[in-house]
Amino acid sequence: MNQDYIIPAPWAILEEGFEKEHVKSSESLFSIGNGAMGQRANFEEDYSGKTFQGSYIGGVYYPDKTRVGWWKNGYPEYFAKVLNAPSWIGIKVVVDGESLDLNTVKSVKDFRRELNMKEGWLGRSFEAELQNGTKLKVESKRFLSLEHDELGAINYEVTPLNRDVSISYEPYLDSGITNEDTNWDDKFWNTLSVEEQENKAFITAHTMKTLFHVCTAMSNTFTVDGKEISLTLKTNKSETYIGHVYETDIREGETFAIQKYAGYITSLNHDKDSLKNAANAVLDIALNKSFRNLLNKQKEDWADIWSMADIVIDGDVKAQQGIRFNIFQLNQTYLGKDARLNIGPKGFTGEKYGGSTYWDTEAYCLPFYMATKDQEVARNLLTYRYQHLDKAIENAQKLGFKDGAALYPMVTMNGEECHNEWEITFEEIHRNGAMIFAISNYVRYTGDYSYIPEKGLEVIIAVARFWKQRATWSDKKEQYVILGVTGPNEYENNVNNNFYTNYLAKWCLKYASEQVKKVAKDYNSDYKRIADKTSVSTEELNMWLEVSEKMYLPFSEENDIYLQQDGFLDKELVTVADLDKAERPINQKWSWDRILRSPYIKQADTLQGFYVFEDHFTEEELKKHFDFYEPFTVHESSLSPCVHAIQAAKLGQMDQAYEFYLRTSRLDLDDYNKEVHEGLHITSMAGTWMSVVEGFGGMRIKNDMLSFDPKMPSAWDGFSFKLNFRGQILKVSVSKGKHTFSLDKGSDLTLLLNGKEIRVVAGQTTEA
Amino acid sequence: MNQDYIIPAPWAILEEGFEKEHVKSSESLFSIGNGAMGQRANFEEDYSGKTFQGSYIGGVYYPDKTRVGWWKNGYPEYFAKVLNAPSWIGIKVVVDGESLDLNTVKSVKDFRRELNMKEGWLGRSFEAELQNGTKLKVESKRFLSLEHDELGAINYEVTPLNRDVSISYEPYLDSGITNEDTNWDDKFWNTLSVEEQENKAFITAHTMKTLFHVCTAMSNTFTVDGKEISLTLKTNKSETYIGHVYETDIREGETFAIQKYAGYITSLNHDKDSLKNAANAVLDIALNKSFRNLLNKQKEDWADIWSMADIVIDGDVKAQQGIRFNIFQLNQTYLGKDARLNIGPKGFTGEKYGGSTYWDTEAYCLPFYMATKDQEVARNLLTYRYQHLDKAIENAQKLGFKDGAALYPMVTMNGEECHNEWEITFEEIHRNGAMIFAISNYVRYTGDYSYIPEKGLEVIIAVARFWKQRATWSDKKEQYVILGVTGPNEYENNVNNNFYTNYLAKWCLKYASEQVKKVAKDYNSDYKRIADKTSVSTEELNMWLEVSEKMYLPFSEENDIYLQQDGFLDKELVTVADLDKAERPINQKWSWDRILRSPYIKQADTLQGFYVFEDHFTEEELKKHFDFYEPFTVHESSLSPCVHAIQAAKLGQMDQAYEFYLRTSRLDLDDYNKEVHEGLHITSMAGTWMSVVEGFGGMRIKNDMLSFDPKMPSAWDGFSFKLNFRGQILKVSVSKGKHTFSLDKGSDLTLLLNGKEIRVVAGQTTEA
Repeated sequence: MNQDYIIPAPWAILEEGFEKEHVKSSESLFSIGNGAMGQRANFEEDYSGKTFQGSYIGGVYYPDKTRVGWWKNGYPEYFAKVLNAPSWIGIKVVVDGESLDLNTVKSVKDFRRELNMKEGWLGRSFEAELQNGTKLKVESKRFLSLEHDELGAINYEVTPLNRDVSISYEPYLDSGITNEDTNWDDKFWNTLSVEEQENKAFITAHTMKTLFHVCTAMSNTFTVDGKEISLTLKTNKSETYIGHVYETDIREGETFAIQKYAGYITSLNHDKDSLKNAANAVLDIALNKSFRNLLNKQKEDWADIWSMADIVIDGDVKAQQGIRFNIFQLNQTYLGKDARLNIGPKGFTGEKYGGSTYWDTEAYCLPFYMATKDQEVARNLLTYRYQHLDKAIENAQKLGFKDGAALYPMVTMNGEECHNEWEITFEEIHRNGAMIFAISNYVRYTGDYSYIPEKGLEVIIAVARFWKQRATWSDKKEQYVILGVTGPNEYENNVNNNFYTNYLAKWCLKYASEQVKKVAKDYNSDYKRIADKTSVSTEELNMWLEVSEKMYLPFSEENDIYLQQDGFLDKELVTVADLDKAERPINQKWSWDRILRSPYIKQADTLQGFYVFEDHFTEEELKKHFDFYEPFTVHESSLSPCVHAIQAAKLGQMDQAYEFYLRTSRLDLDDYNKEVHEGLHITSMAGTWMSVVEGFGGMRIKNDMLSFDPKMPSAWDGFSFKLNFRGQILKVSVSKGKHTFSLDKGSDLTLLLNGKEIRVVAGQTTEA
Repeated sequence: MNQDYIIPAPWAILEEGFEKEHVKSSESLFSIGNGAMGQRANFEEDYSGKTFQGSYIGGVYYPDKTRVGWWKNGYPEYFAKVLNAPSWIGIKVVVDGESLDLNTVKSVKDFRRELNMKEGWLGRSFEAELQNGTKLKVESKRFLSLEHDELGAINYEVTPLNRDVSISYEPYLDSGITNEDTNWDDKFWNTLSVEEQENKAFITAHTMKTLFHVCTAMSNTFTVDGKEISLTLKTNKSETYIGHVYETDIREGETFAIQKYAGYITSLNHDKDSLKNAANAVLDIALNKSFRNLLNKQKEDWADIWSMADIVIDGDVKAQQGIRFNIFQLNQTYLGKDARLNIGPKGFTGEKYGGSTYWDTEAYCLPFYMATKDQEVARNLLTYRYQHLDKAIENAQKLGFKDGAALYPMVTMNGEECHNEWEITFEEIHRNGAMIFAISNYVRYTGDYSYIPEKGLEVIIAVARFWKQRATWSDKKEQYVILGVTGPNEYENNVNNNFYTNYLAKWCLKYASEQVKKVAKDYNSDYKRIADKTSVSTEELNMWLEVSEKMYLPFSEENDIYLQQDGFLDKELVTVADLDKAERPINQKWSWDRILRSPYIKQADTLQGFYVFEDHFTEEELKKHFDFYEPFTVHESSLSPCVHAIQAAKLGQMDQAYEFYLRTSRLDLDDYNKEVHEGLHITSMAGTWMSVVEGFGGMRIKNDMLSFDPKMPSAWDGFSFKLNFRGQILKVSVSKGKHTFSLDKGSDLTLLLNGKEIRVVAGQTTEA
């Protein structure tokens, strides 16, 4: 743990006391989002200290020219970068001519920041003494509306405490912004117009190259001691800025408040010529509803989300805060309404890394969204990849593949590759299998096969073609091999026959041939439509099966385990426990070559295979592999502990499982990796959810039934969660001794508890 | 071949006719240098067309901040970059108010450029018609003095052909220059003073960070029709520029000439406060000697170089021009006078790549310098690495090695690493062995063992310690393995047990233990001095031998060959002959991952081992390995064909040997790689020399004797070369049927010809 200033609380993230060195970290931790847009928790008033200003719009990106030390053939010339968007949260506050700035005021006291996760708003309050001696109480609250996802609202209040003052508010819009993360200091935005209309202001700008048009707009109302007042405005305007200055005299003890309504209207959802009209309409909605009504609706909407997604942990407030923070941030990042969007590794909390979508979505996030949202959301996640299929085929072509083979990018925004390390970009190809496993996982969980004939099969075929071409025949082994890959464990590069990759490829080819046959038989009209685009001959099907059946898997007879890759046993097999602590984390202490030739595993790799294909192996095999590989695992990826937590729980190693859970659930709150100021680790948050539900809840799908094998960490008194299983909402409560099951929605349900069938009757709570 | 505008001639590089698109290529090809400085063949007069201006000073560099896409631990923060230095060749020419500029004149005829390799000067002549109708004949000649290596001289003449004119010359110095190749557009030079003194001018500047101080100076004299005249000057001056303007009226047919003497005086060789005085003295030497006398001395000095280094090829003028161009450029780049300097991959002809020294020096250049220079030159090359030993130990420490282990950098200027691809920088460690082989090669060739007790042993010990630590024990193989390396064939990265690397390490460890024992026994006072710094225990020696003896070498029983690395036979073994020509060169047509998993070999790798350790293997073994590996070799490195030429010749495959020879000797003249405009491939030129002497001459050292096994390409009538062997200068002439040997210097000599001893008597020509 590298910080502990966040105060434990079950439903909120709290900070008390003002510390300048916490500002950038808190800007990440207190970020807000509504799935369509999001922003770091920057102050509304001016702040001249260290800050990382960021506001982001889902799907609005810029193709930044690639920059590398050494060019490798195949690198993309450009890649999509998350773009900092025009700023609309700012309100300059001037009191008797002095600007309010927490970096320069004489003193700050009672500073408090709250991210209210239950209700979905960010609040801040403090008392400041200005250099001119004026003491002020300041309180702000803001949120990004779930109901109107183009809209945000702020209520900002100042109360002079020791004298009568003149206060001016200058709410503003600013399109003169840059990215923290840019390769060549390109100008990303071109401002087209800065307009005003009564008390509304509009800046219309477009991104360079991608030409996303965005109208950023605001309108403001005012109260004194809660009573509406109207003020005349003066305008400050430049080519990329508009501020409306409102000034009035306020007596000691009176509270002067501004309600700022603002947001983004984009050409993703509107005709680019009608953006201003659309913005005007959104502002009118806000003005009509008022801050209070919008906030009340916000609370209702978040209550709806929590009613489905919440996990309650009894007896461990930090664990409770951690899991809710993870669930809250996932919901702020992605709500599944728009199949063009996805779950960025930093969500709307930072801009590190180009692109927004990793295999994390399929491998870690999909289960969370399947279980806590309507089925349509998971379908949208799958559809996202379906919509990128043409780009994935192009991507494979760039790397020399043909005949419609597809390689999904390592990182992407619009389907194009956004990464440029050859050992990852070109070689970490197991991601391609994650696309197919996600489809099969969706069908297994939802029982909805229709996605495959409608969309999935085209993806399945294209990926199978990739594996067929990527595997090559070894005369020596008389089997198919997959050379030159990087597995999930990125501490190995360019290895031959990574078990996880080979096994996944083997499975994909078999699964593909089965699905082609099934769709041809059971969904013939769909099959004809697909075959018109891309027909699969019997020879091709047979070839897939041939490669699948003859796929080489590295195995050690002596150790009776599958090897992570060829030659793994040639390494010096010193376990992590025997490694000097001063040498860790090895990704900071060791040069890259040393890491590569070591046996140390960054994140589950062979064990990832045992997680994904758990049913293919016995528990004894799992134990053997877990006992062999876990001791070499350094868990230096945020995606590693969750898989190990699940497997340790399955094996009954509960202390270990709890230890892994702790590493994943408070990663950002406690800033384990010393990088929270750059933004949050959004995708690994879904892994935390899996640790609880699949790990401690032991949830699996077996023969179209939910199955549980609950095991509770000894530190907890109990925990509960809900699952949307095929339209039925099941609540599961685990406590010492007994477990209870009840249905919030749906008809009676049979489930498995520790392997035994249990009937849960609608309207009744079943204890077992 | 990508160009053929260079006119074949035995002693010159010739270009006729003015083509703007040839300018940048010719600027590289016609480069001149004197070992201490060098410059591209930029025009003296202004040229507004496409040009790459470059003038470089040996040993003057700048630490450029590293730029990469993804940082890997261990990368150097900064690395030394070859610096473009203040320009002194410029002479602005204005005729009746119009500037002479070949890009804007009305017409150019009879343009001719000559690099006279025999005499060491660059000439250019043309007739131009200006826009104002004036026709001019222009002739220039310039050289960098071998005698005074801080000095260059230019004679530049203009003759008006159709009218009387007023001509002004403005010879100038300019320190406002930049690099073509820079990571962050840093300012590299800070100008301290721009001064003049009578008709001399001086600019003193220092490099940023490294603080090399350089005084660039000039003085000019004038003649009309050969008669000295004196002219008054006007000065044009800025903070980084000084020009002296001389104007006079010239009649039609009269020739107005300027002799410009200029050069660099640096703090490498002078106290930085006395640079201007030293520059003044150098200019005075030039003014006293005059252009003609300096040029005559230049011819003599180049005649001396050629008397030792020339290779004569009869019956093949392009081959003749090619080999002389290579020998000429090597001598322009490095003359061995200064052990701080080395042989940059682009010499003084461009600035691509940071650093100046690769393992090319030890593996390819050393034999050339040993055979064509005094022994001291080769010793200086070895001493260069001795002087960098502390930095090599630091470099190894950065990568986690300890106890005085050294890893020499992949690329360097001052001993620090200048490269940043992890697979090369950290893993292409065979370079460390090249340092030791070079020492043993030096001793074998020169018979001078004294270098080892004096300097070499410390390097040998430090490198042995590296190999000892880098090799790790494999419980599975029960042998030592070397994991995660890149061999000479850079089309394989991060492989295990590269045969060449393992074999070299095995040899180094054995050689090191032998040398420690020998020095301890035979050079005890040296040994004590060394042991005071770094003592080697008997246990350590035994450990070296243990690792050497138990070093694993990948071998295929089935094919009866050593494998390039573990798993090589798992590849799809399609030979280059069966590869579609449209797919080549693969480094342009294929993505990097595809190259890596292919069997294709960029440059000799296993065969490099058979070249270096030829004596360790039978000819049958060589043939078996050559026949196996050569068919997979794409020769996409400039260093590949020479080794294959030598081995093909040894195996009697003469057509193949000649084909390889052609690929290496005219690489730049015919611009095979379409990149000659960036500079020349200097180090591979030494490989061309080896192809002739070791390949066709069959030269080896056997039992302290020179040995020859001459084999001539059928296209040639004969060839001859000289060797400095232990102070004796042997001339070897090979022709169809008979070979002759004679001594230019030294007493009688016994050599081996085709395995039989032959006595060469001083003063006599021996035929055989």
